[in-house]
Amino acid sequence: MDARTGLPTVGMIGAGQLARMTHQAAIALGQSLRILADSPDDGAALVAQDVVVGDYRSAPDVRDFARSCDVVTFDHEHVPNDIIRAIAADGIAVHPGADALHFAQDKAAMRARLTELGLACPRWTDLSSAPDAEAALSEFGAEVGWPLVLKAATGGYDGKGVWMVEDLAAARPVLESGVRLIAEERVRLARELAAVVARSPFGQGAAWPVVETVQADGICVQVIAPAPGLSDELADEAQQMALRIAAELGVTGVLAVELFETDEGELLVNELAMRPHNSGHWTIEGARTSQFEQHLRAVLDYPLGATTPTAPVVVMANLLAGPDDVVPKGIDERVHHCMARWPDVKIHLYGKGFRPGRKVGHVTALGADLTEVRNRAAAAADYLANGDR
Amino acid sequence: MDARTGLPTVGMIGAGQLARMTHQAAIALGQSLRILADSPDDGAALVAQDVVVGDYRSAPDVRDFARSCDVVTFDHEHVPNDIIRAIAADGIAVHPGADALHFAQDKAAMRARLTELGLACPRWTDLSSAPDAEAALSEFGAEVGWPLVLKAATGGYDGKGVWMVEDLAAARPVLESGVRLIAEERVRLARELAAVVARSPFGQGAAWPVVETVQADGICVQVIAPAPGLSDELADEAQQMALRIAAELGVTGVLAVELFETDEGELLVNELAMRPHNSGHWTIEGARTSQFEQHLRAVLDYPLGATTPTAPVVVMANLLAGPDDVVPKGIDERVHHCMARWPDVKIHLYGKGFRPGRKVGHVTALGADLTEVRNRAAAAADYLANGDR
Repeated sequence: MDARTGLPTVGMIGAGQLARMTHQAAIALGQSLRILADSPDDGAALVAQDVVVGDYRSAPDVRDFARSCDVVTFDHEHVPNDIIRAIAADGIAVHPGADALHFAQDKAAMRARLTELGLACPRWTDLSSAPDAEAALSEFGAEVGWPLVLKAATGGYDGKGVWMVEDLAAARPVLESGVRLIAEERVRLARELAAVVARSPFGQGAAWPVVETVQADGICVQVIAPAPGLSDELADEAQQMALRIAAELGVTGVLAVELFETDEGELLVNELAMRPHNSGHWTIEGARTSQFEQHLRAVLDYPLGATTPTAPVVVMANLLAGPDDVVPKGIDERVHHCMARWPDVKIHLYGKGFRPGRKVGHVTALGADLTEVRNRAAAAADYLANGDR
Repeated sequence: MDARTGLPTVGMIGAGQLARMTHQAAIALGQSLRILADSPDDGAALVAQDVVVGDYRSAPDVRDFARSCDVVTFDHEHVPNDIIRAIAADGIAVHPGADALHFAQDKAAMRARLTELGLACPRWTDLSSAPDAEAALSEFGAEVGWPLVLKAATGGYDGKGVWMVEDLAAARPVLESGVRLIAEERVRLARELAAVVARSPFGQGAAWPVVETVQADGICVQVIAPAPGLSDELADEAQQMALRIAAELGVTGVLAVELFETDEGELLVNELAMRPHNSGHWTIEGARTSQFEQHLRAVLDYPLGATTPTAPVVVMANLLAGPDDVVPKGIDERVHHCMARWPDVKIHLYGKGFRPGRKVGHVTALGADLTEVRNRAAAAADYLANGDR
């Protein structure tokens, strides 16, 4: 407990944009997020008072940090599972816990568990446990058809750690890289959706409207809330799937379930993230309770907030850096012009250096007309990320 | 300019709740507010990275702080005017500037200037410049009728520095206290309103809907947006008055104009505040651009944001501390119960110690039905401030 406020102290491991935006939400709740940062220049470390610099892969660093907190949560899923177990053994509340996080850290374990629960996934096979991975892949390809998708079981994100392979020859270099792999069928998908929910240790669940996540080159460029044209039945099914996964896996905090909607109108689970997620950024302005506030409520075991949307259409567009300097010349002028052109678009900059393809911020547009709101968000994001280029 | 972000650095003098909420807004704009705090335990100092502890009444402290900023602004109006002039002379942009702030710091100067501009105010007289204050007060009382209102020309806030006096005998102790005073007629008022606007150095202005500020014992307890039953004509007049004052006085940043609506439907200017103001807290969730973001946009000379409301009725209720410990026992449980009972009420805690009557936070409720929204906000605020007491 923080003696100055009488409130428990929440520690977050990792200091990227998720920690940055969680800190923003924490301020309103009388909190000040305690952050374990890789560097004092990390996006969240630039804006929070209570920053400890340390290595999330170091058990002593993480355990020392955790001992100063009442509850520990995560900006990313890269903290080794045995370290998470160690801080829980030290008597610190950890949300989500190690058993749940395992399924966000290891795709083979996640696929196995969801399959066991009867939740629809792309057809898949665990190459890492096969005695002969090449033979197993060949057999799997014969069964479900090429091309196939190879995924690193651990450590992938934003299209990294994912390979689309046309045939066995193309797959061979990946197989020989020594990475633990699973193989999945290439799903004929109509689009990608995400169901973002939260669950508290008490067991309360809350779901935001299901969104469409628009992808380009494996990276989400836009999120549309609610998912246009999604039937009430499918929306309900997606929310129920996500709430069930949260309950069955013992997730505490925000859970984002990335889904494929197939050409046949079937929902398949793609990925899980057990933390605030890019597909929930729209909730900052677009829902009564943002995913960041909700994550804090959940990890504090407070009652969850209302997820009611605040506008008929909400579109979040990511700022994907182009070939700029790390600190782009004229970024201040871009902000200026963007505000002049779109006075009602909400800007979120993450304090991160620009690198091609890196998410350095996002914008949110709200309104009633889907096409207009999408165009507004896309234009503002493009201008901020690229200027006149 | 901050070399890590390529954005200008905004410094705020004072580290109360206004700085705290301005920092929240700054984070989204890629900023991190630099704050001059009295103490590292101040509300804003608890949550911002970039905090300098110093004395706002000390020219060296303020000038050193200002030299590290691209633009300086204020959490309160207590920085001596000559210090503000000194930092401007050092070449630092200051918003609002000393000439404008003078009118928020000195009620005699404000009344004189507004009278000169032909803006309606309560009838008033400057006792501080009268050769015989008692004679001047007696004469003024004979002219406008007792009781009268005495106000300290400088330094008052939240009902402090204001005395309602029935007659000359009651006024004498105040007159003899040595405080510089003005006297005002006691206005027969129907209610109090506030027109909150912003103005940028470029000269752009923006106005939020006019609100009603519900007072108890000289302290604002509730703000209702928009002011119920206010005619379009009066709302328009109030906004125009505020925008004209901002322009004529050269205000940069947010300007709150507190107004009396008389029984006869006339609008009189009560007070001016040249900073984000309690009567604008509702804009955090209730308007597309909050007063805190708008203040930052204005002092950075960015284009101003849209002031469109996000709900038909928005009510902000202040958390006024009762006779609690400085850190009330069970404050965490109060938050818990409040969230359980009102999942859609937004909580804002300021990280301040409780003292009877002190504003320690606020809540915002949004909806469509005025009575329901007011009741919800009032009940949540009372519970957070007082618990089961």
